Amino acid sequence: MSEVAGRMSIQAGAMALEKSMGGRGMLLGGVPGVEPAKVVIIGGGMVGTNAAQMAVGLGADVVILDRSIDALRRLNAQFDNRVKAIYSTADAIEKHVLEADLVIGGVLVPGAAAPKLVTKDHIKRMKPGSAIVDVAIDQGGCVETSHATTHQDPTYIVDEVVHYCVANMPGAVARTSTFALNNATLPYIIKLADMGYREALRQDKHLLNGLNVMHGKVTCKEVAEALNFEFVDPSVLLA
Amino acid sequence: MSEVAGRMSIQAGAMALEKSMGGRGMLLGGVPGVEPAKVVIIGGGMVGTNAAQMAVGLGADVVILDRSIDALRRLNAQFDNRVKAIYSTADAIEKHVLEADLVIGGVLVPGAAAPKLVTKDHIKRMKPGSAIVDVAIDQGGCVETSHATTHQDPTYIVDEVVHYCVANMPGAVARTSTFALNNATLPYIIKLADMGYREALRQDKHLLNGLNVMHGKVTCKEVAEALNFEFVDPSVLLA
Amino acid sequence: MSEVAGRMSIQAGAMALEKSMGGRGMLLGGVPGVEPAKVVIIGGGMVGTNAAQMAVGLGADVVILDRSIDALRRLNAQFDNRVKAIYSTADAIEKHVLEADLVIGGVLVPGAAAPKLVTKDHIKRMKPGSAIVDVAIDQGGCVETSHATTHQDPTYIVDEVVHYCVANMPGAVARTSTFALNNATLPYIIKLADMGYREALRQDKHLLNGLNVMHGKVTCKEVAEALNFEFVDPSVLLA
Amino acid sequence: MSEVAGRMSIQAGAMALEKSMGGRGMLLGGVPGVEPAKVVIIGGGMVGTNAAQMAVGLGADVVILDRSIDALRRLNAQFDNRVKAIYSTADAIEKHVLEADLVIGGVLVPGAAAPKLVTKDHIKRMKPGSAIVDVAIDQGGCVETSHATTHQDPTYIVDEVVHYCVANMPGAVARTSTFALNNATLPYIIKLADMGYREALRQDKHLLNGLNVMHGKVTCKEVAEALNFEFVDPSVLLA
Amino acid sequence: MSEVAGRMSIQAGAMALEKSMGGRGMLLGGVPGVEPAKVVIIGGGMVGTNAAQMAVGLGADVVILDRSIDALRRLNAQFDNRVKAIYSTADAIEKHVLEADLVIGGVLVPGAAAPKLVTKDHIKRMKPGSAIVDVAIDQGGCVETSHATTHQDPTYIVDEVVHYCVANMPGAVARTSTFALNNATLPYIIKLADMGYREALRQDKHLLNGLNVMHGKVTCKEVAEALNFEFVDPSVLLA
Amino acid sequence: MSEVAGRMSIQAGAMALEKSMGGRGMLLGGVPGVEPAKVVIIGGGMVGTNAAQMAVGLGADVVILDRSIDALRRLNAQFDNRVKAIYSTADAIEKHVLEADLVIGGVLVPGAAAPKLVTKDHIKRMKPGSAIVDVAIDQGGCVETSHATTHQDPTYIVDEVVHYCVANMPGAVARTSTFALNNATLPYIIKLADMGYREALRQDKHLLNGLNVMHGKVTCKEVAEALNFEFVDPSVLLA
Repeated sequence: MSEVAGRMSIQAGAMALEKSMGGRGMLLGGVPGVEPAKVVIIGGGMVGTNAAQMAVGLGADVVILDRSIDALRRLNAQFDNRVKAIYSTADAIEKHVLEADLVIGGVLVPGAAAPKLVTKDHIKRMKPGSAIVDVAIDQGGCVETSHATTHQDPTYIVDEVVHYCVANMPGAVARTSTFALNNATLPYIIKLADMGYREALRQDKHLLNGLNVMHGKVTCKEVAEALNFEFVDPSVLLA
Repeated sequence: MSEVAGRMSIQAGAMALEKSMGGRGMLLGGVPGVEPAKVVIIGGGMVGTNAAQMAVGLGADVVILDRSIDALRRLNAQFDNRVKAIYSTADAIEKHVLEADLVIGGVLVPGAAAPKLVTKDHIKRMKPGSAIVDVAIDQGGCVETSHATTHQDPTYIVDEVVHYCVANMPGAVARTSTFALNNATLPYIIKLADMGYREALRQDKHLLNGLNVMHGKVTCKEVAEALNFEFVDPSVLLA
Repeated sequence: MSEVAGRMSIQAGAMALEKSMGGRGMLLGGVPGVEPAKVVIIGGGMVGTNAAQMAVGLGADVVILDRSIDALRRLNAQFDNRVKAIYSTADAIEKHVLEADLVIGGVLVPGAAAPKLVTKDHIKRMKPGSAIVDVAIDQGGCVETSHATTHQDPTYIVDEVVHYCVANMPGAVARTSTFALNNATLPYIIKLADMGYREALRQDKHLLNGLNVMHGKVTCKEVAEALNFEFVDPSVLLA
Repeated sequence: MSEVAGRMSIQAGAMALEKSMGGRGMLLGGVPGVEPAKVVIIGGGMVGTNAAQMAVGLGADVVILDRSIDALRRLNAQFDNRVKAIYSTADAIEKHVLEADLVIGGVLVPGAAAPKLVTKDHIKRMKPGSAIVDVAIDQGGCVETSHATTHQDPTYIVDEVVHYCVANMPGAVARTSTFALNNATLPYIIKLADMGYREALRQDKHLLNGLNVMHGKVTCKEVAEALNFEFVDPSVLLA
Repeated sequence: MSEVAGRMSIQAGAMALEKSMGGRGMLLGGVPGVEPAKVVIIGGGMVGTNAAQMAVGLGADVVILDRSIDALRRLNAQFDNRVKAIYSTADAIEKHVLEADLVIGGVLVPGAAAPKLVTKDHIKRMKPGSAIVDVAIDQGGCVETSHATTHQDPTYIVDEVVHYCVANMPGAVARTSTFALNNATLPYIIKLADMGYREALRQDKHLLNGLNVMHGKVTCKEVAEALNFEFVDPSVLLA
Repeated sequence: MSEVAGRMSIQAGAMALEKSMGGRGMLLGGVPGVEPAKVVIIGGGMVGTNAAQMAVGLGADVVILDRSIDALRRLNAQFDNRVKAIYSTADAIEKHVLEADLVIGGVLVPGAAAPKLVTKDHIKRMKPGSAIVDVAIDQGGCVETSHATTHQDPTYIVDEVVHYCVANMPGAVARTSTFALNNATLPYIIKLADMGYREALRQDKHLLNGLNVMHGKVTCKEVAEALNFEFVDPSVLLA
């Protein structure tokens, strides 16, 4: 789903920059003679790489920030010199966010709250009419001023900055997302159908990792802790 | 303005394909494993070329139809094999429109009503949830079912096909459009300031062609005819 | 050799589509104004990736099917949006094979018969004059109607579909293939020359894996089983 | 048709380089680690540009020779640095032809015999197993040793160089060629149908230029001269 | 020669940015994680387009300024979104020059002094260690602080900005330049050899335009005026 | 630093080819009509890949030699067919070095003297005025005739071949190199600041590997051996 959300974030951002949404009224790629928008993508993982691909495709001036040298090298090789892959520091984030027309927040730490890399103070000093798409909103967001919105009412404005923070972004492109999910889950479903659930769980540790409850016992550690239940190792129950 | 409208048409179309707008819920570029949308662009001029550039950039499967072999060659050289540049016949339009997820109507005949290349019958037989952006709407549109809409309420649905027919599309990206217009008009303004209007009109025939009224006389033939006034050749008045 | 075969498959397919071979008489890349051929590549491994590179280079409309999401992502990143990388299901294979002008069968399971992914029924319903190149023919082929042919008489026709199923395809480009083989084997030969065979086998487990017979004993498990000999672990003999 | 022939010339050349045809047994693009074939294209017009597009697509090492600086600049801009666009002199032709694995003869002077740019002496000194495709064969060929062949028996060998000199190359891809011809002729046919032949000839000077005989008079100067008939200006007959 | 000078300007600029020359110590393309240099090219003609091609190739962040919308469109189509093609105004020049690490002055008005688009004031406010290459130096330069230098001592520093203003830049790559000149002049030389000078001058008006003196008379208007000689029309002398 | 040195090597080589340095007077990319320089890069690792990226960007004819098939495949995929990725043998090195205008020596064996792949005999037989940049000079160089030079006096000539062998090449672009080093070392500095050196060394084995001396004991094996000190395992001292 990160691929879908990353790709969608750019078309959401393009819309948020339109005049009627409160944005600066800029076309991401400009036109010959007129400057393109500066798009700053925080995080060079799956979300950020897919966002960069779309932003480059629309002709924007793209900066992508990450703390992994390996990720920066991969981005540099994949996009040639069409994105600036910059090492992420507090300083670099501030410099580029304040120059940005569109910021994509794409930093997700699996199973943890996203770090608040864009602060209230940044938002106050961003250009009027600039926009921010917080793709990390499902994990609390990586922008201090962001709170979840819906596809019906996707944006709100703080300090003249348009915020797009739709939870479950992939829902807007349900057809594409459904196929993507099917492709990812089909191998497990075939295993379940072929072997039955016990044997499938025994043979496939990825499937086992996804098991939350069995025989009335909570078999996922994080869920057990969060809800104050006893945790039981699923392999014990399968034996 | 055709460049702005052509580029914007793709982001308008991407939005029109979202589920909440009544669209098929497709991401233009798909994701790895899932098919991209088929975008059919009618007309390979300024609007169509700019639309194609954006659609290719977003990873769509792009077909562009035109009747000029020279235009098709130019498109083929510019986009390599990333667009299919097809000779436009009634047959080709029907085939590709019926397979399309998104149709861009970009056929404009300067100073004349646009031809209705996409018919009511096509619309009836298009895929449910597909979308159409009629960039030619300012000249009557090149789709039989299109009528002008506004940025506040940009789309409507006919036979399950989402129509985006905003008149004055470039208004949504006012900043980009303003700079683009400035760039196009600045040379004339400098001439007017440097020489005065009489000398500027005398020396620059493009400027003269744009003169509509002078000394109370209508100096533009088309306007004179349309409004039933006497036409006076501007060079007579300038002498 | 998979690289050579994959690359050759497209020029073999281009030839098979010529009128004099019984093909549809299509140029893979079309020309400006005329549609390119649709090339469907089954399998996104070494054969398929190299075939895709050539098909894209000739301007064809390329679909590549694979069941690995990772492979699809790699193909998407490598070819940008010049190939459609689609998740392979029975349904997807049928849809794309029936629309294809050229099918490349590139599914090889090392050490096992290739799965018959293109069926007799598919062949019957393919377009007349379409062509199929079965690169997996050395392992039995991944097309139900395929049987091995030679460079002297490379094609035959079943149900109006041209079949190119030359065993040992790389033989046609002997010079290129010889250098490719040399490059792959030279490091082993240098080791054998420098150290003698015993020491070389001890130090290089890839070389050891290639040992089939030693001191009259069969040291390759699969060969021993297939021919009903006793298997002896080569490390025992080397000690 | 030059587009079709130019594109086909590379797949014809690829086949001519195969071992079974007497060629060097080289894959045009090589494989990683093994050198690609050197393809030398004489003439940077429609034939040469289309040939270059295909040769680059297959990964060959491409040199294109032309005497027009404008053509060389256009090729350089279109192909970036993927072809070497070299000014054509007797010296340059000799140097590159002798180093070539595949030569494409694409020099056509409309309405005149093609110049013999590749001489018997060149052929004698070319690499054994190299190949030559003479696209100009319909106008006598631009290679001294070339004579027309057919799709049934397309190649012959002179001094160990494989010659492919099929007259009417586009016939092999009849479907693509037919559509291409239709696209080029359709506008004239519509005019003829709409206006009748007299009015159509009067209004369209390209159509008029194609008129060879009218009212029993030869109206094409070159034909009249070649066949020793009186030439009559068609506009006189139309009046 | 503009092509050679335009291409060389970027490698001259790269050297001028090295620490030992007094430059900022920046690599034009940066490395993954580190920002590339901003290269601002004034003028989108032959010099500027060739400079842009090299700067893009080295991975710099490239802005090109021109006053022709057509030139900007051509640059946008040729370089995709790898350069920002901006309409040139006094304002735009100031903004981009002050942000630049390297400025290429490529504005040449044939037969006239180049306009001083970069002023002393700009130079004062440019970043310390930034560099400027004035390709227009042979026509007086387009930078107020520039004066001609030599290949032996190519640079000097004004207000901490490194100036590279070598007159006759192509002399540094004499071999490439000689071939380029040969290619441009060979057709005339062949004509002179084939026809004699009188006939050649009569038939080729480009050659005639290059004639400066004949029979002791000055036949080039600009030279005659500049040196205060009588001008004689060459066609009179040829008659 | 290999990235910086690899990228710089091409601009150093471009300068070394200039006439005033004793070079052939060639522009790396040629111009339309004139052949580009042949750049031969020995080694396809970090140095070679970055050098190739720049050489391709400048339009040179690039050959890269390596002994790893995987590296050759990666280079082929990354650069498409813009570099020839050739398997490195003594034979291939000799052939390509003798044809080269510019050789980049980029073979570095970490912690060992670089192998002398380009011999005195090669240098004698290279083209007069060709150039060689030995990036491996900090480890003794991979060219028999190379010895370290400085940024003040970067080149010398042996047998008419210009040698550029500056030790510490990245020093010329100090700003870029400093940021690159910062990015690589910052994570360690933060750890040291957060945890103190003992805990940081305990938790991060990469940091520990970099420890040379602790409590008066040499904790780096290579240093201890080279300087004839007793080696003490750092984990003993940390305990």
